[in-house]
Amino acid sequence: MEKIKVGVLGATGAVGQRFVQMLQNHPWFEITALCASDRNAGKRYYDACRWNLRGDMPESVRDVILQECEPGPDCKIVFSALPSEIAGEVEEDFAAAGYIVCSNARNHRYDPDVPLLIPEVNPEHIQLIDVQRRNRGWQGYITTNPNCSTTHLVSALHPLHARFGITKVFVVTMQAVSGAGYPGVSSMDILDNVVPYISGEEEKMEQKEPQKLLGSFDGEGIRYADFVVSAHCNRVPTRNGHLEAISVEFAERPTQEAIIETWRDYRPLAQQLNLPSAPQPAIIYDDRPDRPQPRLDRLAGSVPGMATVVGRLRPDPLFHFKFMALGHNTIRGAAGGSLLNAELLVAQGYVG
Amino acid sequence: MEKIKVGVLGATGAVGQRFVQMLQNHPWFEITALCASDRNAGKRYYDACRWNLRGDMPESVRDVILQECEPGPDCKIVFSALPSEIAGEVEEDFAAAGYIVCSNARNHRYDPDVPLLIPEVNPEHIQLIDVQRRNRGWQGYITTNPNCSTTHLVSALHPLHARFGITKVFVVTMQAVSGAGYPGVSSMDILDNVVPYISGEEEKMEQKEPQKLLGSFDGEGIRYADFVVSAHCNRVPTRNGHLEAISVEFAERPTQEAIIETWRDYRPLAQQLNLPSAPQPAIIYDDRPDRPQPRLDRLAGSVPGMATVVGRLRPDPLFHFKFMALGHNTIRGAAGGSLLNAELLVAQGYVG
Amino acid sequence: MEKIKVGVLGATGAVGQRFVQMLQNHPWFEITALCASDRNAGKRYYDACRWNLRGDMPESVRDVILQECEPGPDCKIVFSALPSEIAGEVEEDFAAAGYIVCSNARNHRYDPDVPLLIPEVNPEHIQLIDVQRRNRGWQGYITTNPNCSTTHLVSALHPLHARFGITKVFVVTMQAVSGAGYPGVSSMDILDNVVPYISGEEEKMEQKEPQKLLGSFDGEGIRYADFVVSAHCNRVPTRNGHLEAISVEFAERPTQEAIIETWRDYRPLAQQLNLPSAPQPAIIYDDRPDRPQPRLDRLAGSVPGMATVVGRLRPDPLFHFKFMALGHNTIRGAAGGSLLNAELLVAQGYVG
Amino acid sequence: MEKIKVGVLGATGAVGQRFVQMLQNHPWFEITALCASDRNAGKRYYDACRWNLRGDMPESVRDVILQECEPGPDCKIVFSALPSEIAGEVEEDFAAAGYIVCSNARNHRYDPDVPLLIPEVNPEHIQLIDVQRRNRGWQGYITTNPNCSTTHLVSALHPLHARFGITKVFVVTMQAVSGAGYPGVSSMDILDNVVPYISGEEEKMEQKEPQKLLGSFDGEGIRYADFVVSAHCNRVPTRNGHLEAISVEFAERPTQEAIIETWRDYRPLAQQLNLPSAPQPAIIYDDRPDRPQPRLDRLAGSVPGMATVVGRLRPDPLFHFKFMALGHNTIRGAAGGSLLNAELLVAQGYVG
Repeated sequence: MEKIKVGVLGATGAVGQRFVQMLQNHPWFEITALCASDRNAGKRYYDACRWNLRGDMPESVRDVILQECEPGPDCKIVFSALPSEIAGEVEEDFAAAGYIVCSNARNHRYDPDVPLLIPEVNPEHIQLIDVQRRNRGWQGYITTNPNCSTTHLVSALHPLHARFGITKVFVVTMQAVSGAGYPGVSSMDILDNVVPYISGEEEKMEQKEPQKLLGSFDGEGIRYADFVVSAHCNRVPTRNGHLEAISVEFAERPTQEAIIETWRDYRPLAQQLNLPSAPQPAIIYDDRPDRPQPRLDRLAGSVPGMATVVGRLRPDPLFHFKFMALGHNTIRGAAGGSLLNAELLVAQGYVG
Repeated sequence: MEKIKVGVLGATGAVGQRFVQMLQNHPWFEITALCASDRNAGKRYYDACRWNLRGDMPESVRDVILQECEPGPDCKIVFSALPSEIAGEVEEDFAAAGYIVCSNARNHRYDPDVPLLIPEVNPEHIQLIDVQRRNRGWQGYITTNPNCSTTHLVSALHPLHARFGITKVFVVTMQAVSGAGYPGVSSMDILDNVVPYISGEEEKMEQKEPQKLLGSFDGEGIRYADFVVSAHCNRVPTRNGHLEAISVEFAERPTQEAIIETWRDYRPLAQQLNLPSAPQPAIIYDDRPDRPQPRLDRLAGSVPGMATVVGRLRPDPLFHFKFMALGHNTIRGAAGGSLLNAELLVAQGYVG
Repeated sequence: MEKIKVGVLGATGAVGQRFVQMLQNHPWFEITALCASDRNAGKRYYDACRWNLRGDMPESVRDVILQECEPGPDCKIVFSALPSEIAGEVEEDFAAAGYIVCSNARNHRYDPDVPLLIPEVNPEHIQLIDVQRRNRGWQGYITTNPNCSTTHLVSALHPLHARFGITKVFVVTMQAVSGAGYPGVSSMDILDNVVPYISGEEEKMEQKEPQKLLGSFDGEGIRYADFVVSAHCNRVPTRNGHLEAISVEFAERPTQEAIIETWRDYRPLAQQLNLPSAPQPAIIYDDRPDRPQPRLDRLAGSVPGMATVVGRLRPDPLFHFKFMALGHNTIRGAAGGSLLNAELLVAQGYVG
Repeated sequence: MEKIKVGVLGATGAVGQRFVQMLQNHPWFEITALCASDRNAGKRYYDACRWNLRGDMPESVRDVILQECEPGPDCKIVFSALPSEIAGEVEEDFAAAGYIVCSNARNHRYDPDVPLLIPEVNPEHIQLIDVQRRNRGWQGYITTNPNCSTTHLVSALHPLHARFGITKVFVVTMQAVSGAGYPGVSSMDILDNVVPYISGEEEKMEQKEPQKLLGSFDGEGIRYADFVVSAHCNRVPTRNGHLEAISVEFAERPTQEAIIETWRDYRPLAQQLNLPSAPQPAIIYDDRPDRPQPRLDRLAGSVPGMATVVGRLRPDPLFHFKFMALGHNTIRGAAGGSLLNAELLVAQGYVG
């Protein structure tokens, strides 16, 4: 099969670099366009981008000349790593011009006609695309992936919700510094410290994202799922990997064994379709008493950084059960989430 | 007034060093005995102890010859920083021999006739001492202070419980490495990492300590307070200062203003008595959106390391309110807690 | 004595905050003006400044209205914490207008008629002030203190140079993140890492500063001292305190005892004058095998953060001796250095 | 070819785990024995070993029953990760019993008839094996690899020494915590800190290892190379990767270009033989101004963790040139060094 041409919007930033890295040697996609701010347009990618992922910048992109972030590039899909200050409008321009936009920005996540997608969790929400195109008269369309913290929370909860029905969730996050982009968190603020505040994060986790993700498509829009989340979000001095302490109440109390079995048997559509970036399994249950841990487990699984790792499942004195969840924030929680969405769109026939 | 002679059991360890440091220039107490393991008995303190607090080992203790941990030293009060493997028996031996034992070890915390004390919270529990002496036929007695994480949780909750009645508490801790003693946590385990497990810690916070601390003395024993705690305990790469994310449900929902006012007006007995190590105020409420933080606030207040700092009070979607609490774990959470207990005992006439 | 009115230029930044902190309760100086960028002029200090030193912003400055960085404020001395982009010109404007400028900026350090001062090292260089005023026709004048890394290197070497004559110096620095200001070093760059490069730092240490500091005033200018320095500068994940590994060759090989004795007997003019911010002693020699260490020793001595701590003195297979030196970079290495310079100027009659 | 049976002595420790990890899927070797302390002998490897490398313990070794560290296991080569307290004698026992011992312990490194090997540097030293066998009357023999810090220093210097002749080396190390084994460095000692002392390390780097490694075999023993090293060794808060600041003087001053060219053209025997664990190239020269860095570069190259990365080459004011070198301490600097030695022995016909 001929590879599908893709572009990256905001290619020089932290998430943009992850897109570039993850698209190397992708079996379905090839990069044909890298777009950046006006200031950098016209420069070689190597000259404009301070690469700060482990390993060198891939040879194949070093000499690519950066384009401006406006419709025109020769590609079918664009991955958006744009900052929220400009993502909203630019993404609309691209979608209106016929591009398929897979965005990691928050701007359109909560639009009623834009899918907020985790392929394992709510693949049927891609039907919103038809509503979106109809509403907006676009040839192209926009899909989004959730916030990094929400992604792993909802990934861990999804099979439990499907089987037992979640009613209440208490979550405290311990989030890595890379979640704030580059340069992001000053070393003076985080060495020997924890910062108990991340702007806007608790709102996203409590009200905006989990209920949409676990909601159902009714032909016209998403009926939000009905459960309550309380979130405390903290920044800790780890480089990658968001760790979350979670307590859950269900419609009816399951046994501990039933929960473990549900996680172990979980094999949703993305895994059944064998999407190239879908980890097998999607959820890793670790029964060691002190796991998951960010440094040891953030790259666990068959596609490093794409799985959600859960552990320490035990009864909760207030709710039914409590456990820890961990996932990589800049891979599955950002670029990898958008990429897997694009793979789902291809597999489901949404990429013409 | 002539100073009261005191000794330190387990003087060479991390908590023992804090005792030695905090007893320097104390207005009421003077160190007359330092006791250590058999291996170190007979050595100079300077030679046996690898001092690892900031600042040098005080001159006055360098040449003190270490004694064995058994009754005999010339002092009235002994502060116990003994490891739990031996604390139980040794402390009993000292109490039986007429010493007043102010212990930071966990061994006797849950004995029905041993006070588990925070002077601001439950000073009336010292009446258990009379029960203890009667039960055990001792001249001396044992008092204890709670675990470091419990201390700051309960300190923050105490005035709220007194006024509004707490029914449910969710708490997730982010605890500093010094809480595990020295050498304690390996750097290989904690650099760029969080460890979501601390042996025995959740049990102490959920069932054993808060309900005893907030319970009432009925003349014979403590009637445990009736509320439920769910705790997730984590180790993070900070050196000192335990940070806790807390959600609380009350018998009746107070206003946010009432809670702040309750903290601000809090002036319990220890502060009224102007005990030398009692911070004024006991609870510091910080209204900045990103506080408290371990590095910036662990030494806040009039007696560094003795106050509890609270902040980020806001409504909780599941319970009534949520907030952050922070306190120093090796000062108020360990040696300083025992020391303040001793000061209370003196002020209340329990040190003959 | 009535206190001397002083101002701080660049009062909201990291070094500016240290000036404000160190000037609290100063016996000779009182802050009467705080100046900041145009953007912040007119605001309350509390509103414009994100205080990030331990402890709260002092009450007395919270309501001070920030002024622009131009001559006008009612004060005699201004401490400059300005960024080098603007320090050069602004400082000249103030000096021309009659102010005494004690600057931490690098702009004028290498001017032939501007003293580069460490009060313990080269107090006689203040005579350059007369040359400067004559040359420039100014009522006021400018003095500077060296770079943070140079400060502690030269402080440790000064008494050795005076007695034995230094000819060659190898130095490798391990510098704290606060040396880069706020926000400065991104946490993404420094967690679990060392960055072996600090722009411009090696040039300052090798050629520009040590030889001027240890040079002699000949009535018209400074004859630079004649020794060679090789410097490797590194950023490490510590918050405060620059640690330096140093190997030295002398004109003639001293004994190890003679070096230790020289450090221990060191009592230069600043200490003889009992300047308020002069640590007693200026150099602390620690004979423990693993000291000095940043966290344990950066605040050592009688004026926290103002002393230089040396240790691990031992023969060097290539040069004569090697040792470690440590000092606080934002206290003695920045604001405290300027402050001590001002104290010297007062004591020597240079503040009218 | 049938795989050669190998065992690991000290298989449960930090270096032992690396051996187990690196021997998975090795093209020439297969693990047939894991040996541990008496305390653990008889247990399953999974039960006795607290695996703390990223990724899970390989399935194939989980059920292996640990044997005692004494001759008997069915294998030809044993890799020794034994602590130095017991390594000396145990390794001799194995060699006497006919085993080929590839040791990472320091005990026999300085024996005149035991090769201290880096395959790229001094492969001809394996001829010492014949001397050793003759001297000791052994069927088997012992080879060793150098200390982690020495390894990368000498790897970087080797081609320069071969071409230009080194006379003086000044080196300051910034070493990762994993170099001290597990649990090794306490987090309380290293968070926000640098420890300027590592017991025995400077002696190894100055006198014991570089001169033997770069020495020549004269038919009977090693004539040590004649150059002088001065080393300052420091522990910094990084997890893996030793970074070294190096200044070098040569017999005659080369040009900067000649040095770079020498590194770039370096292709020693191990690379010519295409040994499975030999990185291609052996030395990576990075011309970016702020490289190498531990986090970004410790796994650089074709065999992660096996290459030495050099950078920041520039003239030195005292010696000829200075530069930075970096390498992984537990891979090439420990287990990987022994493993590559074993590969060389096989390729050169020393494994019967």
